[in-house]
Amino acid sequence: MISIALDAFGGDNAPDVVVQGAINAVNSSEGKFAIVLCGPEAEVKAKLQEFGYEGKLIQVVDAPELVAMDEHPTEVLRKKQHSGLVMCVGLQKKGLVQASVSAGNSGAMMASCLMILGRTSEDFARPPIGCIIPNAKGRSVLVDAGANVDEKPNVLRDFALAGSVFAESYLGIKDPKVGLLNMGEEEKKGPVSVQEAYQLLKNAPVNFIGNIEGRDVLLGEADVVVCSGYVGNVLLKMYEGFFELHTKTFGVIDTPAGKQFNEAWDYRNTGGALLLGLKGTGIIAHGRSDAKAIEQAIKVAYTFAANNVPEKIGKKLAGIEA
Amino acid sequence: MISIALDAFGGDNAPDVVVQGAINAVNSSEGKFAIVLCGPEAEVKAKLQEFGYEGKLIQVVDAPELVAMDEHPTEVLRKKQHSGLVMCVGLQKKGLVQASVSAGNSGAMMASCLMILGRTSEDFARPPIGCIIPNAKGRSVLVDAGANVDEKPNVLRDFALAGSVFAESYLGIKDPKVGLLNMGEEEKKGPVSVQEAYQLLKNAPVNFIGNIEGRDVLLGEADVVVCSGYVGNVLLKMYEGFFELHTKTFGVIDTPAGKQFNEAWDYRNTGGALLLGLKGTGIIAHGRSDAKAIEQAIKVAYTFAANNVPEKIGKKLAGIEA
Repeated sequence: MISIALDAFGGDNAPDVVVQGAINAVNSSEGKFAIVLCGPEAEVKAKLQEFGYEGKLIQVVDAPELVAMDEHPTEVLRKKQHSGLVMCVGLQKKGLVQASVSAGNSGAMMASCLMILGRTSEDFARPPIGCIIPNAKGRSVLVDAGANVDEKPNVLRDFALAGSVFAESYLGIKDPKVGLLNMGEEEKKGPVSVQEAYQLLKNAPVNFIGNIEGRDVLLGEADVVVCSGYVGNVLLKMYEGFFELHTKTFGVIDTPAGKQFNEAWDYRNTGGALLLGLKGTGIIAHGRSDAKAIEQAIKVAYTFAANNVPEKIGKKLAGIEA
Repeated sequence: MISIALDAFGGDNAPDVVVQGAINAVNSSEGKFAIVLCGPEAEVKAKLQEFGYEGKLIQVVDAPELVAMDEHPTEVLRKKQHSGLVMCVGLQKKGLVQASVSAGNSGAMMASCLMILGRTSEDFARPPIGCIIPNAKGRSVLVDAGANVDEKPNVLRDFALAGSVFAESYLGIKDPKVGLLNMGEEEKKGPVSVQEAYQLLKNAPVNFIGNIEGRDVLLGEADVVVCSGYVGNVLLKMYEGFFELHTKTFGVIDTPAGKQFNEAWDYRNTGGALLLGLKGTGIIAHGRSDAKAIEQAIKVAYTFAANNVPEKIGKKLAGIEA
């Protein structure tokens, strides 16, 4: 059975929402996976009791050290070996769990996954972040949503490969359409790095549909949206802002379309940020996650691990590098 | 009286919507400005007659040559001296009109304005595009919405100066808050060029509030959003996509909030792309403009020219360079 390690004290609303999210996840998943909560043992166990969990699918591993949201990532790795965050990834490296989830210090989670699990492509300075985003036709995958900046063209190409595997094996889209985010459709448009990535993508083993514009992202013209982590982060945060603006303006619109929109656009349903290009499944949940967001992140981690998505991405990238 | 030159055969729906937009603009502006329609004279006059205009506020100047949407900008400048697009800007250079508007070939309009009117800062390879964008609190200014790519930090700084004058003199926002679009709030986040621009902006004569994220743009945390033309174009097109997705999902919501949202988000009300950093007022209206969008672009051009916005931007930039 697949086990997922969860950083019990990670996130703005931890440990309550994390423990509750874990309980909700196992209770609604028919025994498909188990959860290992890493955090100060007595407190985590007290929370499990408080929330009435008596099952066997949640274990607790003692991780007494706490990580602050603003601690320097490499410092955390060096000095907080017994924190929930680092211990999750450590258990995964030992093969005791198959995925790690944290809503805590995202830089530290990124660094832990990178240093402990390792990367599948030497081109990735950091593992790119994949995110699920809604569009007018359904859902697509955004890569990179914020891990990297100032990427070289071959890194953008690798984002496309990783995102393509992600969309296919996670969203079930066969031969997903890969679009390069740019300021016009023509090959010769945009920053030099993007123009060069265009040329690499023409010959890459993905279904490259060319440049797409911001409008196309929303209208769902591509299944995989490829861009730098800088632009991807701006894009993802605009999604958040638009949803907030919409909710502020209209509230929750009580029609089938309104409910569907709400469901699709609520960040709590997207499962957080998936670290692609790692030798294993690592997920950074939103810092302000509530129990619903944690539950969803756990389920995404399960699906990722169960479908061997990291291994498949590794193989795809290795094919390019070979 | 201020006169505005209008490219009669520019845009997907020209000349009908252009001529109609011009008529609507003068009819609803109490004689504040006159319009000079540049295009094949007989055809433009026939359209004016067809649409029932008999006033004296619209003149026609014969410009027999037509410019295709995909013609190369410098070719247009060289070979199409008698096109509406080039003649508009030529009349402006001669002082016969105070602003030019075209919904035609945007690259050619950009090049004509740049070569014929000239730039107010040598740092601008191309005049940055300023756009009005809606947010949860009202409106803000985006610079650059797509003219430049791969900008140096001092160019981003100059975008901030130009945008600040734009927001103050056009939107009437005193001491507008200038935000640098980035992937985090910290100074050391994001691409190197953005980090360097941050340092320049700390000492620039604008109300710099630091980095802003995509979410902040929608929530209206800044009055002036500064970013590269590449990112700005993605952002602007995402706005279009959001609005289309929203309209597709919900239609026009028939409440005061819904109407206000529609009014604010409809690109036809924004007046198009303003070329900042030129010695004069040049506006690129959306290629798919209808009469309402053209009317609005004319009114924006009037307000820009009447408030001497280009001169004020020139002075602000000269202060930095001196």
